[in-house]
Amino acid sequence: MENIPISKLGKYGLIDHLSEGFSPVNKTTINGIGNDASVIDSGDKYTLVSTDLLLEGIHFNLVYFPLKHLGYKSVIRGISDIYAMNGTPGQILIALGISSRFSADQVDEIYEGIKLACNKYGVDLAGGDITSSLTGLTISVTSVGYAEKDNLVKRDGARPNDLICVTGDLGASYMGLQLLERERLIFEKDKGIQPDLAGNDYVIGRQLKPEFPVAVLSDLKEAGIRPGSMIDITDGLASDLMQICKASGTGCRIFNKQIPIDYETSRLAEEFNIDPLIPAMNGGDDFELLFTVPLEMYEKVKEITSVKIIGHITEKGSGNYLVGDEGTEVEITAQGWSREK
Amino acid sequence: MENIPISKLGKYGLIDHLSEGFSPVNKTTINGIGNDASVIDSGDKYTLVSTDLLLEGIHFNLVYFPLKHLGYKSVIRGISDIYAMNGTPGQILIALGISSRFSADQVDEIYEGIKLACNKYGVDLAGGDITSSLTGLTISVTSVGYAEKDNLVKRDGARPNDLICVTGDLGASYMGLQLLERERLIFEKDKGIQPDLAGNDYVIGRQLKPEFPVAVLSDLKEAGIRPGSMIDITDGLASDLMQICKASGTGCRIFNKQIPIDYETSRLAEEFNIDPLIPAMNGGDDFELLFTVPLEMYEKVKEITSVKIIGHITEKGSGNYLVGDEGTEVEITAQGWSREK
Repeated sequence: MENIPISKLGKYGLIDHLSEGFSPVNKTTINGIGNDASVIDSGDKYTLVSTDLLLEGIHFNLVYFPLKHLGYKSVIRGISDIYAMNGTPGQILIALGISSRFSADQVDEIYEGIKLACNKYGVDLAGGDITSSLTGLTISVTSVGYAEKDNLVKRDGARPNDLICVTGDLGASYMGLQLLERERLIFEKDKGIQPDLAGNDYVIGRQLKPEFPVAVLSDLKEAGIRPGSMIDITDGLASDLMQICKASGTGCRIFNKQIPIDYETSRLAEEFNIDPLIPAMNGGDDFELLFTVPLEMYEKVKEITSVKIIGHITEKGSGNYLVGDEGTEVEITAQGWSREK
Repeated sequence: MENIPISKLGKYGLIDHLSEGFSPVNKTTINGIGNDASVIDSGDKYTLVSTDLLLEGIHFNLVYFPLKHLGYKSVIRGISDIYAMNGTPGQILIALGISSRFSADQVDEIYEGIKLACNKYGVDLAGGDITSSLTGLTISVTSVGYAEKDNLVKRDGARPNDLICVTGDLGASYMGLQLLERERLIFEKDKGIQPDLAGNDYVIGRQLKPEFPVAVLSDLKEAGIRPGSMIDITDGLASDLMQICKASGTGCRIFNKQIPIDYETSRLAEEFNIDPLIPAMNGGDDFELLFTVPLEMYEKVKEITSVKIIGHITEKGSGNYLVGDEGTEVEITAQGWSREK
């Protein structure tokens, strides 16, 4: 490959390129690159393993991100990948890179948050690594879980006419981030001014202390619905939906009126003079589930209150489109590398 | 905890402190913090998972560390943790944080090295993550393997009178690093001067392209020797031996004459005016195995040429000592945080 800047390839272009030429040699390697977690055959069940990297200045800014919340969110990010494959997280490993400006009690705060999340989601902290770093804080999260072999859900199982569903609402975390960033800039110009975050508790909470919608997975199970494909919404609905369509070899149509956006997100987007669809489509960090179910499941799936049907899967080659109010179709494009969060 | 600088606690003091209050809730969590890898029960076998963080400026300097070698070494570092528990590595996940100064073909080079090591050790690249970073290169390595339940070897199985064994030779990687650093400083002062690395191929190779002594594990198995405790030597013999003694509740005596040091390491240490025992005891990055076997195995173990018996385990409370030529005893101390590599 020529000396191409990574921004041109995009995150997933780069991953695709790098994956070439790696072909599994171990029969336990069921599913490698290209899903939320790696799938490893461990006899009766599949073991799922996932790894994420959180870097200071890219994924969080410690000016407004409390360390305890950061520890909590790191765990959510890890287990989200396991849930997204219809698995159950069991263990988490955390590796920290910390520079000399951190004291032991600050590391304690990170671990307090990790502990809270582990307790809430029934996950064990099972290991990790601590190393010094030259600059800033680096958090590497490895999550381990399992799935019954019949229950594993990957990205490649979407079929034409399947319903496209999402949980919760989208774009709030991104708007929370915009707000925190705005107040940070104001504060840095004039340290006398206190941040004005009143009335935005929801979006800020979605950014600083996200939860994962675990209950939906049991609701689906109880209703006898097994999604054909699934992914967690962390890169943004647009990018994550395109991952499903690409893996499944399909197109899609989603309807902008159906995309769930919280009132606070919309109001704040208006204040920032941006279309609320932008954070919903491209914001990311939502920690919601995006999945597809066969059309026959319509009656069942619409009974689950936290799930919203936003569109349907189409034939290969029919493109990925967002359908507007008057039937106008806008092509969905993934975020570039520069939008990588 | 008060506002204690991390350098005072030390790496393992910090890990011990952070581990407090985490008690496993999942019955699949067999062994958490405090071993080379986490041990997870997956039915017939144990699944082993380990995570390591490699940070630019701390673990490698790209001035002299070729990216391909860096990819190779990252894999070695990952699988080393699995082998150290007498396991077989199967999969590796790599998460990269790359700043805008990297181009796609540089990332390619890293992956070429990863591929070479994966092929050589029969490991599959099974996933990972790529993210942008503000500064420098961050590599997070997650390795997954398995061990038959009867064959797992942990750190806590050393017993008084057990023989302490090491593979290969120690300190070479550290001396290679010293040499590369010296030449870097000279080069940075005067770009006209070419680095003088002649005659030091072995130590440089040990730093830039380490291998793992896999054959020893099969030699031990063939000879019917199952180590009571084992660890890979990555932090340095002193620190890693203390980990075994601490986990096993024992003391130890090792003999400086028995510590295997390559001629090139000794010669270079002399040139740098340092005692060759220092890199051997505290250098780290050796990727050798340190293990204990019962005294009855003496005849068998001494037949394995790549294994050297360097001392024996003693009763709890008898301390950890390095015994010198005239019987003088020097207490072994672990590296501080500042020596963390």
